Amino acid sequence: MEYPSKLIENAVLEISRLPGIGKKTAFRLVMHLLRTEESASVSLSDAIIKLRTETRYCNNCGMVSEDVLCKYCSSAKRDHSLICLVEDIPDVIAIENTAQFQGVYHILGGLISPVNGIGPDDLRIQELFDRIESKKNTVKEVILALSPTMEGDTTAFYLNKKLSEKGIEVSTIARGVPLGGELEYADELTLGRSIVTRTKYD
Amino acid sequence: MEYPSKLIENAVLEISRLPGIGKKTAFRLVMHLLRTEESASVSLSDAIIKLRTETRYCNNCGMVSEDVLCKYCSSAKRDHSLICLVEDIPDVIAIENTAQFQGVYHILGGLISPVNGIGPDDLRIQELFDRIESKKNTVKEVILALSPTMEGDTTAFYLNKKLSEKGIEVSTIARGVPLGGELEYADELTLGRSIVTRTKYD
Repeated sequence: MEYPSKLIENAVLEISRLPGIGKKTAFRLVMHLLRTEESASVSLSDAIIKLRTETRYCNNCGMVSEDVLCKYCSSAKRDHSLICLVEDIPDVIAIENTAQFQGVYHILGGLISPVNGIGPDDLRIQELFDRIESKKNTVKEVILALSPTMEGDTTAFYLNKKLSEKGIEVSTIARGVPLGGELEYADELTLGRSIVTRTKYD
Repeated sequence: MEYPSKLIENAVLEISRLPGIGKKTAFRLVMHLLRTEESASVSLSDAIIKLRTETRYCNNCGMVSEDVLCKYCSSAKRDHSLICLVEDIPDVIAIENTAQFQGVYHILGGLISPVNGIGPDDLRIQELFDRIESKKNTVKEVILALSPTMEGDTTAFYLNKKLSEKGIEVSTIARGVPLGGELEYADELTLGRSIVTRTKYD
């Protein structure tokens, strides 16, 4: 595809580097930007550059933050004895949206995956132990909120062993049939497991 | 949805203003930008701002351009006696990609649409007549390359009348069954019209 100007070509190229955006979509976005007022492009450009250059990571949990500590780690309203361990930033946002968790987080930055050559040392696991250590027995429980995949299970298995050795209570988020789903459409593995790990009705 | 930082919230907001991009996709793009190197965000931001602040429009045809005249209007290799009239910039790019046209363009910036309150005076029609006037009878033919819709047909009807009065030859791009399409799946209107407007086999 030939573009009428270098500026358009460059903008299409840069926008199409984003995941899920091809050259056709990028060109459509470029046309949109050209048609709307200049201030829209200025704020968009500004938001992108500030996002990348001014965002830092919380020294404690690894969450994106504007300060040394993120808003969860620096909050006095949060229960700092309860750490929820997650794979990445979007998981924190998903859990926050449930409004069911009042503890703090710790971001691993990935999952153990021998196939992809990712071991415990590539994740923020040492940071977790250092953090627990520095809190001098105030951390009571670690919730493993990891994806129910092979990598998630491997990571959970490894962390449960290490954390239990240090006398920390380890729990994992419940797995079973999702709320609102019809039983006959639940996959066999989930359904089978939900029978084995049934809980008392109350 | 609550975001972990103002910078992220702002970037999600700005990106989700783009057409076809919702807040979820915008957040996914934000996470992508945070994970990739800083230079990627810098070039993206730079490309967007330059696109909007440095792009201007050709004085002659209305195409986006970096100079007073666009690359088609300033080219000596182009046939300046043949003007292809299009609705908007993407049409020029589509026609250029066919490599079948060696004339110049004129962008209307829309189509006549009484329903939407768009009349001839809202389009670059006067500019077309001024342009033809200033060229002193060197413009021989105007090709109407407008969408085969009600608005396109209305605009073509109006322009044909006005241009013919000035002694300019007016043609329109051929309408019929698209190449590579199966006849049985062609819509009735197109197929019917393609029989009525059949051309000599050669």
